[in-house]
Amino acid sequence: SAMPNSRPSSQGESQVVKDFKQWLETNDKGQAVAVGAIYALTNLVKRSDASTIMELEILLKDAQEQLQKVKFEGQRSKLIQLTAACELFARHVTRTTVDIGDFAVCKQRIIERGEGFAQQADYARDVIADNACPFLRDGMAILVHGFSHVVLNVLTAAARRGIRFKAICTEGQPECDGRRTAAALSASGIPTELILDTAVAFVMAEVDLVLTGAQGVCESGGIINKIGTYQVSVVAKNANKPFYVAAESYKFCRLYPLSPTDLPDAEKEPASAAPAGGGPRERLPPSDFTPPQHVSLLLTDLGVLTPSAVSDELIKLYY
Amino acid sequence: SAMPNSRPSSQGESQVVKDFKQWLETNDKGQAVAVGAIYALTNLVKRSDASTIMELEILLKDAQEQLQKVKFEGQRSKLIQLTAACELFARHVTRTTVDIGDFAVCKQRIIERGEGFAQQADYARDVIADNACPFLRDGMAILVHGFSHVVLNVLTAAARRGIRFKAICTEGQPECDGRRTAAALSASGIPTELILDTAVAFVMAEVDLVLTGAQGVCESGGIINKIGTYQVSVVAKNANKPFYVAAESYKFCRLYPLSPTDLPDAEKEPASAAPAGGGPRERLPPSDFTPPQHVSLLLTDLGVLTPSAVSDELIKLYY
Repeated sequence: SAMPNSRPSSQGESQVVKDFKQWLETNDKGQAVAVGAIYALTNLVKRSDASTIMELEILLKDAQEQLQKVKFEGQRSKLIQLTAACELFARHVTRTTVDIGDFAVCKQRIIERGEGFAQQADYARDVIADNACPFLRDGMAILVHGFSHVVLNVLTAAARRGIRFKAICTEGQPECDGRRTAAALSASGIPTELILDTAVAFVMAEVDLVLTGAQGVCESGGIINKIGTYQVSVVAKNANKPFYVAAESYKFCRLYPLSPTDLPDAEKEPASAAPAGGGPRERLPPSDFTPPQHVSLLLTDLGVLTPSAVSDELIKLYY
Repeated sequence: SAMPNSRPSSQGESQVVKDFKQWLETNDKGQAVAVGAIYALTNLVKRSDASTIMELEILLKDAQEQLQKVKFEGQRSKLIQLTAACELFARHVTRTTVDIGDFAVCKQRIIERGEGFAQQADYARDVIADNACPFLRDGMAILVHGFSHVVLNVLTAAARRGIRFKAICTEGQPECDGRRTAAALSASGIPTELILDTAVAFVMAEVDLVLTGAQGVCESGGIINKIGTYQVSVVAKNANKPFYVAAESYKFCRLYPLSPTDLPDAEKEPASAAPAGGGPRERLPPSDFTPPQHVSLLLTDLGVLTPSAVSDELIKLYY
């Protein structure tokens, strides 16, 4: 077979899935899932006995489909990032082979770049912190919705640089991951307040800026993120407060949602039947889309971008 | 003493407080607290040996202060209503004595009107349902925030009249009284959905109108209500959806808040210290003020009012 390492054998899962799972188990630094995907794909290229670019492309396409099916904690919210990482990797393979005629040299280059990605991803978060700091000033109150490693990194870096601000975290039903954010910020010595999701508009008058992460940054510059992000952006806009998004460029995805509820399948609201014993039907949409007109700026490792600049960056990434 | 029945004796509470508490214990029909206050004040007038209007006014003023201190379930959220009821009663006493010279006749008239108030309050909710029904149509989705007897009465009355609509209830943290609303509506045969407080903006596109109750209707036509009401109104306005408030006229109060956080003392956000062991400070503002520009119409027993009409009605009630 041309793909001995990729196809799931009858004994169980393929090596690419095993590599990815092993990475997930040992990821205690809170690294992005994109890093794990690139790690597994790089190993796949290393192991492969493919001798043409076409074979390699088929291998990678197949591996992507398998990785998208792996279940892990927070998988749903990280699927956009995982998909974007796989697509960018495949795109990079194609582009490298166009630039370099020799297949062996080409393969070596792909492996080198793949192996450098983990470091590059760590670096991305620090670049974002550098880019974000000029927007944070002494005395500010910063409202945060949800939990995001990159947002946490921005705020703790700013605090380390001596900027004295206050964080207000929303609880973030249903996961209540705002409690996790609040605990982490508070542990870093940042004065932190926790509010219920009903109190966002109440506190908005005292807020100087809103900062959230993103599950995915779409072509329009709008973001897909945990439920409630869109609502927070509406409340911020109503109060003329800036709404900033911190996101690594590997979260940029080729999606173009047209409304707050227009989401990829994994992020769609699950169908829910009325309970058997009668009573109200409980709805739990996991994510929403915040349109670009509600996003003031995107703080990324490619620089500070207006929403409309995202499509240019996507073109640069993919073409 | 001129006020034998009103002053708390050394043995314990005054008769007016006893009457009010006894009313609260036997109130199983979900009648408004205003009804209980008027009941206690009417009894006070009946019992009193006051022989001048001045004496009566002092008695009533003193009774109001005592009633405001009585603790009961949901007391905080009903204090505006209780205060408005006491003030309107006192105002009515003054006006009656101006119209009628004879004190004995005057007292009799006050007692008659006071005794009719309970019935009038029940009637108010039905009038509101009548006034609201033309705004509800087949196929509508109606978003409800919080729990309100008058809102419940509007929706169940509309359902009984054959209007087929869907209700979407917010959970309403921290009390989660939206669950109570959802259960009651569902039990009345109305198709009902329950959403988290983070999902209001997500569902707003499918909503045709928002309907809430009010703890108090202020002079400007804005409302004081449970936390999150202002936020829902912001999200509704952003989506160009009408925001209706159903409220009995005894909730009209002579307050003029200037911002969503400008509230009477009982409704103010309680001070909260950071927890002793460190960690984030949890804030729990109980109520907010929704400014008149976010209220489309007020559905009251005095008719369907624009916010700006409330001050005229208040003048009629008090002068």
